[in-house]
Amino acid sequence: MSVPISFLSDFGHTDEFVGVVHGVIARIAPTARVIDVTHGIGRGDVHGGAMALTRAVQFMPDGVFLAVVDPGVGTERQAIAARTSIGYFVGPNNGLLAPAVAMVGGSDLIVSLEDQRFQLPSSGATFHGRDIFGPVAAVLATGQAEITDLGPELPADAVTPLLIPLAEPDGRGAIKATILWIDTFGNIQFNIGPDDLTGLGLSTGDDVTVAFAMMEHRITWGGAYGDVDEGEAVVHVDSHGQIALGVNGGHAADDFDARVGDSMVLGRPGGGNRLEITGVATT
Amino acid sequence: MSVPISFLSDFGHTDEFVGVVHGVIARIAPTARVIDVTHGIGRGDVHGGAMALTRAVQFMPDGVFLAVVDPGVGTERQAIAARTSIGYFVGPNNGLLAPAVAMVGGSDLIVSLEDQRFQLPSSGATFHGRDIFGPVAAVLATGQAEITDLGPELPADAVTPLLIPLAEPDGRGAIKATILWIDTFGNIQFNIGPDDLTGLGLSTGDDVTVAFAMMEHRITWGGAYGDVDEGEAVVHVDSHGQIALGVNGGHAADDFDARVGDSMVLGRPGGGNRLEITGVATT
Amino acid sequence: MSVPISFLSDFGHTDEFVGVVHGVIARIAPTARVIDVTHGIGRGDVHGGAMALTRAVQFMPDGVFLAVVDPGVGTERQAIAARTSIGYFVGPNNGLLAPAVAMVGGSDLIVSLEDQRFQLPSSGATFHGRDIFGPVAAVLATGQAEITDLGPELPADAVTPLLIPLAEPDGRGAIKATILWIDTFGNIQFNIGPDDLTGLGLSTGDDVTVAFAMMEHRITWGGAYGDVDEGEAVVHVDSHGQIALGVNGGHAADDFDARVGDSMVLGRPGGGNRLEITGVATT
Repeated sequence: MSVPISFLSDFGHTDEFVGVVHGVIARIAPTARVIDVTHGIGRGDVHGGAMALTRAVQFMPDGVFLAVVDPGVGTERQAIAARTSIGYFVGPNNGLLAPAVAMVGGSDLIVSLEDQRFQLPSSGATFHGRDIFGPVAAVLATGQAEITDLGPELPADAVTPLLIPLAEPDGRGAIKATILWIDTFGNIQFNIGPDDLTGLGLSTGDDVTVAFAMMEHRITWGGAYGDVDEGEAVVHVDSHGQIALGVNGGHAADDFDARVGDSMVLGRPGGGNRLEITGVATT
Repeated sequence: MSVPISFLSDFGHTDEFVGVVHGVIARIAPTARVIDVTHGIGRGDVHGGAMALTRAVQFMPDGVFLAVVDPGVGTERQAIAARTSIGYFVGPNNGLLAPAVAMVGGSDLIVSLEDQRFQLPSSGATFHGRDIFGPVAAVLATGQAEITDLGPELPADAVTPLLIPLAEPDGRGAIKATILWIDTFGNIQFNIGPDDLTGLGLSTGDDVTVAFAMMEHRITWGGAYGDVDEGEAVVHVDSHGQIALGVNGGHAADDFDARVGDSMVLGRPGGGNRLEITGVATT
Repeated sequence: MSVPISFLSDFGHTDEFVGVVHGVIARIAPTARVIDVTHGIGRGDVHGGAMALTRAVQFMPDGVFLAVVDPGVGTERQAIAARTSIGYFVGPNNGLLAPAVAMVGGSDLIVSLEDQRFQLPSSGATFHGRDIFGPVAAVLATGQAEITDLGPELPADAVTPLLIPLAEPDGRGAIKATILWIDTFGNIQFNIGPDDLTGLGLSTGDDVTVAFAMMEHRITWGGAYGDVDEGEAVVHVDSHGQIALGVNGGHAADDFDARVGDSMVLGRPGGGNRLEITGVATT
């Protein structure tokens, strides 16, 4: 018997990296099911991988969470496994695992993956997904080893944190929000929730001012894209419960020329003599 | 026990959307196998998704067909499940399901997916693949619910049709055909079969005139790409039994600058004083 | 019962080709597990497919190896199955299978896939992955047929070889190496191993001269990317035990403007009055 392994990486689908990790797991744990969360994380984008893992984790079955976005492979960063209430997280200790582990209530046991009995030997550079993380995920999924067999225990706070920007309310009806995610459809997700907007005195149906790149836009807080005309922007609560900015039938990130990590100021209209522009030009 | 779920969408592989739907299904139906038909349908391309589903359906195992290409998500379009001779089709009622359902003999029972017992709650906008279609596919695959449990029955003709262009013979030895599909190798598939060409008095081995974009090309009706020289175009019956236009070792759609929905006129050579051009320049 | 099928192709993920082959296999062999090695091989790139299969095969579970990169489909090239010590290889006889079959010790039985009982009928051009190779993989994985049922036996040397360039030592401290693979991260893998460099009198930690495109670079032979500064090139033994050239935090192939099949001359520094350039400009 085996629990499922949910697998996320930045390996992409051009090379055989994902398939080889599946193969290694299948050799160690022939009955283990591997669910590919995504392998489309930007190369070495630890922040993007951590956000995707955090968004996904609550929808995946309990089991093992194998995550590999590892620009520091071959350096001193540790390889770890962390036990949580929903199963084990396995990956590099570079911030990738921290938000998801925190979201599920934290970890009560963390080990450094040092015992080479549970690793593949490599004649050259180690491909950690293949040689360390995949094998460890397989033995944990099947119970072929206890987590404490895998290496020395680390302190409770050993999981490297990830810096997630805090939203900054200005106390005068506006809040500086930072973009956490832009999805493939161009939707912009902020680090604020609906409570942050209601705290400014705004309600669904109101217009919201969105200041970015020397421009201020006036955009409806709607319930769905269909609440605005084609090509119009809409502020809404997205399917993860976060405040997001989309364009009906369009690509908000391209239209606003916005990137993950950029900040926008959302606020109550009429808060001063700032330029007000209704809608956004789509090109 | 569970029947397989064949899953098609326009979610792509950049974000975790596909993985999250797999996760939701695995939580509800741990033994259900999900086969990814493709997630490479163009964003919101209902016609392209419907064509791919129709081409694929006869090769997939009986079970549940989960299809999500849904530019109207959040509007009034219904979410439906339709019972057919090979299993259940689940998706938005926007034309995506219609040609495949028709191809397998139609549906004898259609319901509107309204019963929230079989849906995930969402704190914001609904991600219907994750919150409605995935869970419904899982409960149908495992028999945890009857289709009639999922919501009110709809009339027999409730599946929204998809307009598929009809070929137009001119009665004088030519037929106007429309492009249904251009595959990743650049092959052009028309909405006509070999009977349409034989009806014009043409046989395999003959030259066919293909008029497009103010040009007329004279192209052999061959059995395989290898029947013409490298870089030459060939009319042939493709692996779905449809008339298609390919270029040996090339990319027909790029060479002809053709798109899905464009029409070309295929006919018997010598049908008048039209310009005849042999072959196609490949660049 | 069934053994796993490891599946590699150049089908990509835009169309439903991969899903349809999965579907065909699931209909014939409902319990067979299919592991996707990769479908990102360049269109018709037999050499690239053969290299990926060879790199992957030692990490995949014993079973059936289904590989389809087939620019000659529809021509005279044979469709074959080859029995080896780790299972069956199924695919076109165009060089794709040869290096992997050789790597696992060769084949003791090869057949030409001609028996149409184990093929799907097609009303037009044959899609061999769907109509021949997939069904054959399924029947071999489940034991529904013996390999000798599938078609006539071929001579022991019937597997079409793939020409892999040999490294050429000049006898004066340098070796001409050819690029076998450039991965998605831009790493350049050569057709030489560490023994070839030690044979020139070089050791880990030494500088190596790398001559390419009228330029000579002086590059450290390091153990990991972290051994050189960000943006610096490093010669190393990669995770397959081959000599490779990478750039720490960069994309070596772009930086050097190198392609698979290009040759570089690696050697001992000070071997003459050749221009010596330290590092490589990254743009």
